[in-house]
Amino acid sequence: MANSKYEYVKSFEQPDVLLPNTWIVVRIDGRGFHKLSDYYGFIKPNDRRALDLMNAAAVGVMKDLPDLCIAYGISDEYSFAFHPNCQLFERRSAKLVTTIVSTFTAHYIYLWGTYFPDTPLQPAALPSFDGRAVMYPNSRIFRDYMSWRQVDCHINNLYNTTFWSMVLQGGMDRREAELELKGTLSSDKNEILFKRFGINYNNEEEIYKKGSVLYRQYQLEESSDSSVQEETSPLQEDTPSKTQQEKIRKLRRKVQVVVDHVDIIKDEFWERRPWILSGKPGKLPTEAKEVA
Amino acid sequence: MANSKYEYVKSFEQPDVLLPNTWIVVRIDGRGFHKLSDYYGFIKPNDRRALDLMNAAAVGVMKDLPDLCIAYGISDEYSFAFHPNCQLFERRSAKLVTTIVSTFTAHYIYLWGTYFPDTPLQPAALPSFDGRAVMYPNSRIFRDYMSWRQVDCHINNLYNTTFWSMVLQGGMDRREAELELKGTLSSDKNEILFKRFGINYNNEEEIYKKGSVLYRQYQLEESSDSSVQEETSPLQEDTPSKTQQEKIRKLRRKVQVVVDHVDIIKDEFWERRPWILSGKPGKLPTEAKEVA
Amino acid sequence: MANSKYEYVKSFEQPDVLLPNTWIVVRIDGRGFHKLSDYYGFIKPNDRRALDLMNAAAVGVMKDLPDLCIAYGISDEYSFAFHPNCQLFERRSAKLVTTIVSTFTAHYIYLWGTYFPDTPLQPAALPSFDGRAVMYPNSRIFRDYMSWRQVDCHINNLYNTTFWSMVLQGGMDRREAELELKGTLSSDKNEILFKRFGINYNNEEEIYKKGSVLYRQYQLEESSDSSVQEETSPLQEDTPSKTQQEKIRKLRRKVQVVVDHVDIIKDEFWERRPWILSGKPGKLPTEAKEVA
Amino acid sequence: MANSKYEYVKSFEQPDVLLPNTWIVVRIDGRGFHKLSDYYGFIKPNDRRALDLMNAAAVGVMKDLPDLCIAYGISDEYSFAFHPNCQLFERRSAKLVTTIVSTFTAHYIYLWGTYFPDTPLQPAALPSFDGRAVMYPNSRIFRDYMSWRQVDCHINNLYNTTFWSMVLQGGMDRREAELELKGTLSSDKNEILFKRFGINYNNEEEIYKKGSVLYRQYQLEESSDSSVQEETSPLQEDTPSKTQQEKIRKLRRKVQVVVDHVDIIKDEFWERRPWILSGKPGKLPTEAKEVA
Repeated sequence: MANSKYEYVKSFEQPDVLLPNTWIVVRIDGRGFHKLSDYYGFIKPNDRRALDLMNAAAVGVMKDLPDLCIAYGISDEYSFAFHPNCQLFERRSAKLVTTIVSTFTAHYIYLWGTYFPDTPLQPAALPSFDGRAVMYPNSRIFRDYMSWRQVDCHINNLYNTTFWSMVLQGGMDRREAELELKGTLSSDKNEILFKRFGINYNNEEEIYKKGSVLYRQYQLEESSDSSVQEETSPLQEDTPSKTQQEKIRKLRRKVQVVVDHVDIIKDEFWERRPWILSGKPGKLPTEAKEVA
Repeated sequence: MANSKYEYVKSFEQPDVLLPNTWIVVRIDGRGFHKLSDYYGFIKPNDRRALDLMNAAAVGVMKDLPDLCIAYGISDEYSFAFHPNCQLFERRSAKLVTTIVSTFTAHYIYLWGTYFPDTPLQPAALPSFDGRAVMYPNSRIFRDYMSWRQVDCHINNLYNTTFWSMVLQGGMDRREAELELKGTLSSDKNEILFKRFGINYNNEEEIYKKGSVLYRQYQLEESSDSSVQEETSPLQEDTPSKTQQEKIRKLRRKVQVVVDHVDIIKDEFWERRPWILSGKPGKLPTEAKEVA
Repeated sequence: MANSKYEYVKSFEQPDVLLPNTWIVVRIDGRGFHKLSDYYGFIKPNDRRALDLMNAAAVGVMKDLPDLCIAYGISDEYSFAFHPNCQLFERRSAKLVTTIVSTFTAHYIYLWGTYFPDTPLQPAALPSFDGRAVMYPNSRIFRDYMSWRQVDCHINNLYNTTFWSMVLQGGMDRREAELELKGTLSSDKNEILFKRFGINYNNEEEIYKKGSVLYRQYQLEESSDSSVQEETSPLQEDTPSKTQQEKIRKLRRKVQVVVDHVDIIKDEFWERRPWILSGKPGKLPTEAKEVA
Repeated sequence: MANSKYEYVKSFEQPDVLLPNTWIVVRIDGRGFHKLSDYYGFIKPNDRRALDLMNAAAVGVMKDLPDLCIAYGISDEYSFAFHPNCQLFERRSAKLVTTIVSTFTAHYIYLWGTYFPDTPLQPAALPSFDGRAVMYPNSRIFRDYMSWRQVDCHINNLYNTTFWSMVLQGGMDRREAELELKGTLSSDKNEILFKRFGINYNNEEEIYKKGSVLYRQYQLEESSDSSVQEETSPLQEDTPSKTQQEKIRKLRRKVQVVVDHVDIIKDEFWERRPWILSGKPGKLPTEAKEVA
């Protein structure tokens, strides 16, 4: 066919398959959200509508992509994780990342009006997101990644809560507040909040302090003393066939995705939800909280 | 700070900078658009509203990313090209691809209602796109890539026009039509169209036959006999500084993006628009057609 | 300086750092050794001199690169493994692979005369090796890699022993022997060997049946019931500083490298030599066997 | 077969095919040659035996790999270049690099005794090399790479010649000489050489000032005014079939490899040897100089 003359250009496409049997984390970030949050008048330090919109879009992604086993979001970023045994799109990096970024964006734009009914989107300032995929070779390191994000959430939120209290309630200039906070410890910020503004940081909302963690809601298990099991069984047993994969996807679609605001650094979270690290379905739940 | 304990996980992020001085093409594709076009009742073989929406979203991307020098779209796919001298995002592949995919998706979802006023989007069936970046080492090969897509447009559109005429006007069963078309040449399809349905394929709309090409509208130049110039000057002269880049971006934002449906295989298109392959701004136009 | 005009070409060098915390296996293979073994008259099916030369070259590599923790060789191939905590050359793939390939080649050529005193090398037929690096995310999979090679050794050696007995002792034509062996099971080959040639395969030399495994000789430990420990402790604890690395290298240089011909598929080998999978030095040995 | 249980580990091998239609340069470097040159008593600033050995090993590589079209060496480094139309080993990076590094090492070790008859190699200090592959998208940039290396040769040799004159003839301490040379221009070094040691740098041997360039000796052509032609013809015409490749290799093997010490920065070198940049065989020569 006539096309064959040009078809050689396909040979320039380079493979980008991620290493088998590693955790894949796709982290997406809002593009220019500092400016954008000013443009659409997001409330400082935390705009609940904006966070709820992020979470709703992330739930949309989790539902569209049943291979995802957990997601964690703070501010304008979200991390989506695939289990080491995931075979979606043959683990092609660009395909995985762009699918998540596009699906997230689609839900975010589509749902904007639900969360910001009085602030219509402007075509010259549409929100968008970039993203990247990172591999983590085992569950310990993957959990350290998740801990890293949650510690970051805490650090940023304590800072922002203090900073905006000083500016909005304390009437300080932004530069002034920034200078005073430079080099301060957590304890210093807690004290500023409490002494100057009567704010006990511990009483702040969990969604601000802990971020949002999304997962499929199977029956919680008793927390055990044994440490979390590694996903180190040989690949050939782990890798489900295409038919099995489709079956597992169907099952997962039926399980509800929950939005939680809890500690994911300590073992308890993972021990009570062993299906996340095992990559195998859990028992169906008898009850579910805050269902999305 | 407490975070340092986990921060080592950043070391797992791997660089993905594309080779300098190569054309970068980001091609995006609609995910599951076969099913989606049924779901939303797209007209066969070509739904003008859907194509116009694709083009409007692509214009949005061209405006948001002035580094892009040309784009070409057919059906539910779009190719966006960066010139070899492009330094956007330090040429990081994931950043370039996800930014384009997300920006395109944002405009597509945002503009849906404009092009499909009577067919509201459904949250369980939101359109989304995946994408990938491919490098082409020189202008000849880059132009072959563009020719490849336009030949594909022709082949697919002739096939689809014939197929859907047989089905919709000829009352044939889809399988029947498929079987009859198997192995036919272009001339056969032209004949079927003309003899059975009185359709002269040449009179079909250009947007269907040629696809859509988007570029910034500078003053067209006289077509010359000399073949297209190569972009082979040494990198150090080509690579603009950060400040120069920002300046060029500003200039480009002011130039209108046009949507054209013309031959991009022959030399003429490129000779009359030398700024596309040169990567340097052209003369400001005195007139402009179909401005987007 | 004048050079700066051209120095931009360095920007085309792309990073190739391997993912942290994964096993790195560099496998090298003789180039065209089928032809080369004919050229230099290697004895079939196994030339002890050639294998001893391979082992001596591999010992040279292990001594020159104390970061290596184990190596395994069969025929004209050798696999060298770095522990997940290895930081040598910042884990740059090309640097690791080429250093091993070059060092191995240097020893091989240098030592040729020792093992083939009557067969001088010819400049037009110098032995050479190619190689590649592969990452394995955890010890289970790394051990499966090692098992794969040793199973291959067994399969190939049983086949070759039978084939060459049929040809050299049985006077069969090569094609004939090949045809008869096609589709046979291990038991069939064992029977051919025993019934036709009075060879009990179990009595063949261990070096041919098991291949050669090289490691540093610390004090063997009692085989325990507990399964092999995972190398999953967090990276930041695992990664030694530059100074510590140099110290560990010095210690390792003092430990003797042994050449063993034993089963590395079962747990026992790894349990008695826990320093290999742990990446930490063992106890100094009180005795050592077959020291290289 | 029993092996299938472990064979899944092959899936961890990742492709490393280099972008089509780009120049591939494999640069190799001596490992620890500073120390090694002391160990074996290399003469300073240039040891002719060591350079001749490098060149002889490089000629060996050029003969073993007819796909190579040019090589350039200075000190303990050598750059080997494959033309954009090269298909050797399907352009797999590790395979190309390790083959060159290993072949070079084999010749270097094998030939050592010819060039250093009185200085036998010691097993604990065997010379070895590392290497890497870099892609250059067009001939202009590839030539800039070659110019970069030759400018480096000039800069280093002028420095070393001056430094070692000051130390060996001038009796200066190494540190002293280093300090005095810090920040000096070429003209300063020329003056030191001339005024203090009566050395006219221009009269130094070409091999030291220009390095060594290796290529296949076809009939030189008249230098033309036209600038060097680009290798931009479409890939499908350029890429020879496997059979054609083998034929071209055979032809190339018959052509002699010459070692030259000439300017490769100016156009003349390339214009008179058009086969290097074109990748097509030249006319057979009627005479040849310094044949290797």
